[in-house]
Amino acid sequence: MIRVAILGATGYTARELLPLLLRHPEVEICALTTRQDTQSHVADVHPTVRGRLDLKLENLSLAEVAQRADCVFGCLPHGASAAAVKALLDAGCRVVDFSADYRLNDPQVYAKWYQVEHPDPERMPETVYGLPELYRESIRGAHLVANPGCYPTSAILALAPLLKAGTISPRGIVVDSKSGVSGAGRTPKPNLHFPECNENLSAYAVGQHRHTPEIDQVLSTWASVETQVVFTPHLIPMDRGILTTAYADPQAHVSTEQVLDVLRDQYRDEPFVRVVEDLPSTKHVVGTNFCDVTARVVQGKVLTISVIDNLLKGASGAAVQNFNLMYDFAETTALQ
Amino acid sequence: MIRVAILGATGYTARELLPLLLRHPEVEICALTTRQDTQSHVADVHPTVRGRLDLKLENLSLAEVAQRADCVFGCLPHGASAAAVKALLDAGCRVVDFSADYRLNDPQVYAKWYQVEHPDPERMPETVYGLPELYRESIRGAHLVANPGCYPTSAILALAPLLKAGTISPRGIVVDSKSGVSGAGRTPKPNLHFPECNENLSAYAVGQHRHTPEIDQVLSTWASVETQVVFTPHLIPMDRGILTTAYADPQAHVSTEQVLDVLRDQYRDEPFVRVVEDLPSTKHVVGTNFCDVTARVVQGKVLTISVIDNLLKGASGAAVQNFNLMYDFAETTALQ
Amino acid sequence: MIRVAILGATGYTARELLPLLLRHPEVEICALTTRQDTQSHVADVHPTVRGRLDLKLENLSLAEVAQRADCVFGCLPHGASAAAVKALLDAGCRVVDFSADYRLNDPQVYAKWYQVEHPDPERMPETVYGLPELYRESIRGAHLVANPGCYPTSAILALAPLLKAGTISPRGIVVDSKSGVSGAGRTPKPNLHFPECNENLSAYAVGQHRHTPEIDQVLSTWASVETQVVFTPHLIPMDRGILTTAYADPQAHVSTEQVLDVLRDQYRDEPFVRVVEDLPSTKHVVGTNFCDVTARVVQGKVLTISVIDNLLKGASGAAVQNFNLMYDFAETTALQ
Amino acid sequence: MIRVAILGATGYTARELLPLLLRHPEVEICALTTRQDTQSHVADVHPTVRGRLDLKLENLSLAEVAQRADCVFGCLPHGASAAAVKALLDAGCRVVDFSADYRLNDPQVYAKWYQVEHPDPERMPETVYGLPELYRESIRGAHLVANPGCYPTSAILALAPLLKAGTISPRGIVVDSKSGVSGAGRTPKPNLHFPECNENLSAYAVGQHRHTPEIDQVLSTWASVETQVVFTPHLIPMDRGILTTAYADPQAHVSTEQVLDVLRDQYRDEPFVRVVEDLPSTKHVVGTNFCDVTARVVQGKVLTISVIDNLLKGASGAAVQNFNLMYDFAETTALQ
Repeated sequence: MIRVAILGATGYTARELLPLLLRHPEVEICALTTRQDTQSHVADVHPTVRGRLDLKLENLSLAEVAQRADCVFGCLPHGASAAAVKALLDAGCRVVDFSADYRLNDPQVYAKWYQVEHPDPERMPETVYGLPELYRESIRGAHLVANPGCYPTSAILALAPLLKAGTISPRGIVVDSKSGVSGAGRTPKPNLHFPECNENLSAYAVGQHRHTPEIDQVLSTWASVETQVVFTPHLIPMDRGILTTAYADPQAHVSTEQVLDVLRDQYRDEPFVRVVEDLPSTKHVVGTNFCDVTARVVQGKVLTISVIDNLLKGASGAAVQNFNLMYDFAETTALQ
Repeated sequence: MIRVAILGATGYTARELLPLLLRHPEVEICALTTRQDTQSHVADVHPTVRGRLDLKLENLSLAEVAQRADCVFGCLPHGASAAAVKALLDAGCRVVDFSADYRLNDPQVYAKWYQVEHPDPERMPETVYGLPELYRESIRGAHLVANPGCYPTSAILALAPLLKAGTISPRGIVVDSKSGVSGAGRTPKPNLHFPECNENLSAYAVGQHRHTPEIDQVLSTWASVETQVVFTPHLIPMDRGILTTAYADPQAHVSTEQVLDVLRDQYRDEPFVRVVEDLPSTKHVVGTNFCDVTARVVQGKVLTISVIDNLLKGASGAAVQNFNLMYDFAETTALQ
Repeated sequence: MIRVAILGATGYTARELLPLLLRHPEVEICALTTRQDTQSHVADVHPTVRGRLDLKLENLSLAEVAQRADCVFGCLPHGASAAAVKALLDAGCRVVDFSADYRLNDPQVYAKWYQVEHPDPERMPETVYGLPELYRESIRGAHLVANPGCYPTSAILALAPLLKAGTISPRGIVVDSKSGVSGAGRTPKPNLHFPECNENLSAYAVGQHRHTPEIDQVLSTWASVETQVVFTPHLIPMDRGILTTAYADPQAHVSTEQVLDVLRDQYRDEPFVRVVEDLPSTKHVVGTNFCDVTARVVQGKVLTISVIDNLLKGASGAAVQNFNLMYDFAETTALQ
Repeated sequence: MIRVAILGATGYTARELLPLLLRHPEVEICALTTRQDTQSHVADVHPTVRGRLDLKLENLSLAEVAQRADCVFGCLPHGASAAAVKALLDAGCRVVDFSADYRLNDPQVYAKWYQVEHPDPERMPETVYGLPELYRESIRGAHLVANPGCYPTSAILALAPLLKAGTISPRGIVVDSKSGVSGAGRTPKPNLHFPECNENLSAYAVGQHRHTPEIDQVLSTWASVETQVVFTPHLIPMDRGILTTAYADPQAHVSTEQVLDVLRDQYRDEPFVRVVEDLPSTKHVVGTNFCDVTARVVQGKVLTISVIDNLLKGASGAAVQNFNLMYDFAETTALQ
């Protein structure tokens, strides 16, 4: 039985983690933290678990967390997370970190995009990026896993195999992503006010979204090529789901079927990636840990479409998948 | 040409007023106020009017407003509104007040429900309630009109004729209302955050909503009976529209057709009330100043269903209708 | 291991059953039927289960179904269902029937509301109504269970204890229900076309909805009083969830706390009913088998608010709960 | 006073035309046709105009239409439309054709994409494409105008000036469009059923959408270059609005400000195109005839974002704008 804590347990990623952990036969939830002093019952913050989990949210020190928990799911904001992770690892905990703090390898890239100095730069290059489809063996037994961003998960799963196989050119890749609003978090903001974003559609953070360097780094490292993607996120009036449409130039003439075969070869044995022939919809994967992906060749461009639930395969589902690998449980435990 | 100002021009009621006023052949918009010092251009606050109105939002004194405007649409919160209204009337302006401040006649009822002393209690009983279908003659030429609440408009238009005709009993009336989220205003709040209220449904302010005494007062006064309605508002995951289902006991045995006839008699010549036989939908009236209403007799209860656009017939459309009456313009000007 | 079949497996109730059954440790899904000859793979009809279930939808005879399955979940339309149920029971299967065919006890009431003669009238009065909170002991070991309607579940769970305790009068009860659109099924219709029902709100089937006699019968039978509810369903622009607001006259003066206590006493040990003090939202229960219920006394009326996921506690979740009771599995198996 | 008829008046484009025409001071609506024999009142088909227009939908012959009307708005499907247009023009009517029949110049391209022989091929190359921003002078006084497609309007207004100015390369342009569901028409279909497309997101008709050759033709003709765009439409769970994100390679190094200046130069005097610096949202233009457009240079790509209301600037608003030009009325009449 692994004793588990969630740091920063008031947001949507924690809300999604809870039912997965409650269903996990090898997990005992032992602490939920918040920085507020309210001592709210978890059921007041996440009413869906009322009657299923009798815990308070507590303003615990990291030492107290480390005393109670074997493994910590860190749902803190970037910057704050790294400081906590460092202390927890030193205290002997294992950590799945939802923040961006350990996803990037290069402290300077981090400082440029996140506009803060990284408090633990040495650990950045050695931390495994928690995408089991690319880095499963490094995740097994790891003490720290950097849980991937939601957009990067959808983009990388579609593009990485095509780059590695040399099917597409690393130059001029366009990643046009569309996300449900839960990806923006639980804090009310004017643009996320229901009457503003309902029945509305917009792009945001064009050319400036922090997932851009994450996509480039993982694609470039894994496929051993240098990419510089144009990444444009859009806000869609729905709760959850990401659909990413990516456009790339082929390295040589290629057919739709050949592109699909590259994806099929890569993902044949993956429990949570389904290469499909039809055009995937977010609703096919919402509520699951699946990524559905397809590809087409159109007017000489290679086009991929991939869908995930941004809160599951894009966050809490991936975290449990990583947790299962870290502790050598069956990878699909609690995820089906 | 009537020179018009809007007090508190950042919210949804102002946003809806602007295109109506821009379309009105006898109106010149001359001032938009805010309490912030930002001097934002109106197009930054309400992008829909970009290119159509070249005005800044200004933190004007009431004296400045009175100097520029003949008529003021007051979109301030209750309490703040009455203070401004008083000064504007004294300065010779006419006012359509969107706040609740002059809807109630009784300062004590106001103090109980709004938990603040009214700054201008003498004017309360003499101010006309701006529902033209009940009080058209008093609105003509008025200097101050209290623009009705959105829920009361939907409930009163359905129930008032039936009460006056003695069709239904004043005892035990249930008013079950459902509203789109724009009715809650433009200020972001946790329960109005998109991922919280999208795909969600809840009742709120049960037994405590401030529109309750407004409904009771207008029904009771106009029909000369004493009502005490049970009013329950619900929040519906859509932008705009109110549907009110009301249930009452008949005074004597009555048929659906007889109830409809009472409504038809009342509203035969009304430009903005349509008595319909089919069940009305909010989408039939959204974007218009119409109220559609029907009735049924079911299991011995009289049931009415009425729909309005909460931001038009329930707010800004009604305000323009009142304005037209105050200045003796054709009542439908700018509303079709 | 119980071998399970689903009759009429193309709709939403079947889609919701599948992941529950896949998660159930004592279930093997052995047949999915359709009346079409298409032999579609289940993943083409329900893409969410792609990769998790490798079965075709087949146009099987009832004899073939009975040969393969121990227990059948019947998702056929009323009328068609009873004919199938009869044959399956005769062939030794157990059945959870989602249709309305065995919910009503009285063939004449059935004929009046469903406008068809019942093909198996003898079995009507003896079939247990599958609401475990009222009829748990009769469901245990049953061979046929009539799975309740979604609206009745939400209304009965709120009102039955108050009627039985004599808290509320059986006369003049108003049941004002609001439902997400999935309750209307998977067949495209003009009023369910996205641009018609999105951002729209309407009542439907006023005074004529077939769940009316079901609510009356169960309330009347269980509480030994005669009710005649006024039931008004409304269509809400969201996928799933029902919120029912009910209004009743108290038998004697009563407080909110006293009404809540009656509900608490009834449901203290129920795994899937949560009596709450705050106002419940559908989002608190969507995706779960819970019913959250609260009550208030307002202006002399007793008001209850209850919420369920119409496809889970209102359909497929209840069916699995009934299945667990029929086979003596832990009642919450596969439901958490 | 121009007597106006609408052919095929049951759909969404007709529904949107009606309030515009009712507001137009020089228009009298004299006929609404349908192919059904039902003689429905227009208020039963379009309840929003109840009480404002007292006309039946009639199954009229084209001769009858020509007798009643000076100008016909044709809302028939492609193929059927050309046959009607031909007859109406011969009978002396002017026509604004919403169908695709006269948008393309080349009968063979038409036959390939629409899989039907064009019944009136001679008129194809000489018909003006009704985008006033490009072809205003040819629209003035025209007897037939081909009203543009919704996606092409959004894409062309953003890209045409940049192509003509030589800012972007005609090769490898990606047009990634997102549309509300009303663009798919009023006929119920499984994928447009509310519970299917609500809270869902998908691409459709990838590489095969019929607006592709329309975009290529208009861009190529107007800018005198040969384009071959990759066009990908996506279905967004909202009623109305299109946002198009386009990606192109610059011909030479260029800044965001320089790209914006090209757009500003082109649209300085346009009544319905607003070049904006912020990122536009569909909600800024829904309910209006505006197109808002902006541009950015990101990672060496030129990116444009343009938004329209697909039913107004993308259909019925554009039709009225064209009508105004054809009859020499002020271009903005009835559109503000």
